[in-house]
Amino acid sequence: MTVPRALPAEARAVVRGDRRALAQLITRIESRDPSVAPILRALHPRTGHATVVGLTGPLGVGKSSLVNVLLAHLRSLGKTVAVVAVDPSSPFTGGSVLGDRIRLERDPGDAGVFIRSMASRGRAGGVATATREVVRLLDAAHYDVVLVETVGSGQVDIEIRDVASTSVVVLVPHLGDEVQTLKAGLFEIADVFCVNKSDLPGADAAAKDLSELAGLGAARDGWRPVVVSASARDKTGVTELWTAIEAHEAFLDAEPGRRAEADRRRIANELVELVRDRVAREAAERLQADPSHGKLLDEVAERRLDPRTAADRIYERTHGSSSRTRRR
Amino acid sequence: MTVPRALPAEARAVVRGDRRALAQLITRIESRDPSVAPILRALHPRTGHATVVGLTGPLGVGKSSLVNVLLAHLRSLGKTVAVVAVDPSSPFTGGSVLGDRIRLERDPGDAGVFIRSMASRGRAGGVATATREVVRLLDAAHYDVVLVETVGSGQVDIEIRDVASTSVVVLVPHLGDEVQTLKAGLFEIADVFCVNKSDLPGADAAAKDLSELAGLGAARDGWRPVVVSASARDKTGVTELWTAIEAHEAFLDAEPGRRAEADRRRIANELVELVRDRVAREAAERLQADPSHGKLLDEVAERRLDPRTAADRIYERTHGSSSRTRRR
Repeated sequence: MTVPRALPAEARAVVRGDRRALAQLITRIESRDPSVAPILRALHPRTGHATVVGLTGPLGVGKSSLVNVLLAHLRSLGKTVAVVAVDPSSPFTGGSVLGDRIRLERDPGDAGVFIRSMASRGRAGGVATATREVVRLLDAAHYDVVLVETVGSGQVDIEIRDVASTSVVVLVPHLGDEVQTLKAGLFEIADVFCVNKSDLPGADAAAKDLSELAGLGAARDGWRPVVVSASARDKTGVTELWTAIEAHEAFLDAEPGRRAEADRRRIANELVELVRDRVAREAAERLQADPSHGKLLDEVAERRLDPRTAADRIYERTHGSSSRTRRR
Repeated sequence: MTVPRALPAEARAVVRGDRRALAQLITRIESRDPSVAPILRALHPRTGHATVVGLTGPLGVGKSSLVNVLLAHLRSLGKTVAVVAVDPSSPFTGGSVLGDRIRLERDPGDAGVFIRSMASRGRAGGVATATREVVRLLDAAHYDVVLVETVGSGQVDIEIRDVASTSVVVLVPHLGDEVQTLKAGLFEIADVFCVNKSDLPGADAAAKDLSELAGLGAARDGWRPVVVSASARDKTGVTELWTAIEAHEAFLDAEPGRRAEADRRRIANELVELVRDRVAREAAERLQADPSHGKLLDEVAERRLDPRTAADRIYERTHGSSSRTRRR
């Protein structure tokens, strides 16, 4: 493959599919190393080819096993696949991440597969931003499909829509009773529902319930969630799952501008997050460096000033008071 | 009790302990109604009296049952108690929240108890900020102890230290094997470990392991986590749990400036979050309103511009280019 000389060396390594370079860049994105910016900038025009699929769902529904059989299915179709397992920042999920990762069997010699866990040690905002950037790297490295799997539950589950063009919510039969309670949240996320462990009793009823709910509700942006049943253990339903994902991808391309509109919405959220992250970093640095901010802290601690008013003062000092009326 | 006329009417209602006024103000904080700002401002000087205890831990360790017996114990000591159950924003935890809430038995006629669940439908950042403000309301309403319970796992677990002056991590015996993996994260959070379900086999070993780990590690800010065993079912260990919490509170007061230093750290984080939230809100509004931002979105969507560069441009337009060197 031709790789233009104009690209930075590390960007060229990504385009060539150099796995070690990819792994190192991902680590640098995770640790918020600012020196990756020019590499991401150089690679951005080379993104937008991969199908990015998000898989989310409660703990214990077998997401990792499902990713495993989906991976095998995609390889049998000749597609190259990258898997990103995103872990919300709670230390409590550490154990299950490890457990899930170990269970993900694969042929270590298969050059068409790349698997990576991402832990988020940082605060709010970091996970989605870093995940998006990692997905773009893998896209630029020519993986046909990028599977983003969220581990456990947490805010990342909702943000999966900000990362993937098709989002799959994985459930199991015994959650059937709870679906009524959860449905608003679930239908906000899912383009495809996958009822895993379809060998368990109640699986058909759960799938039927979901299908009925999907039929009753208003279609979101013209799409009604598709419900498929699968069993990662028996390796059934995986063809149907991939067909449903492809159907949603085809839907996005069926009308001019539809995919672009979804892209724009995701990008708008991303830009807001990037600006917010930068402002938060700078506000934290100034708060530590500036002695007058120390006085503000004292005033709040001594109850002479309330936090919102103090925050407004910091805002005005650091972002100019030319700004519009105060909101809080 | 004397309530100065100078306070806004709603603030006076809080100070009088009017439960309906409290409940309504909490709802307004949850929905980010900006009109609560003057009320919080007026009440701020009246806060700082309550003991704020955070309880966190993995799903299924029996946090709510433990809160329940702790609540009964505190009432028997004559203390008034408010409970705030914070739910991370995942729709998947909806079911368990409901379940936990229903299990929290109490005497509905007891005026010395106030219980409230807080769901966070919003994005990153909102939960901790709103929780802190709700805790201050309850503090101003003269509750002696405010128990903040996080539901499930998620970022809120880590942020519990930003809300509570004493943080309790609740575990159960069968998590013993995983503790080695999790310990760094757990010891970052816990002032007190509570091994619940101490009637189960392995409970003594789990408590001993934790005590040894606590003894080996470096003391954080001079405090080594205390490990207690309890059984919410058998109502044992609750006295020991409260004694451990009080020991940590006494430690904070044992040396001049120690509690103030911890307060200042929390306030510093809070101010950064408030500034970040405001900036994010404004960036989102401008992005939607300004046609030149629409062009930026197009450029990113069409791969002519990368997101980080686009975010830098928004930052410079909205926050002035007088600012320091670019970070990303």
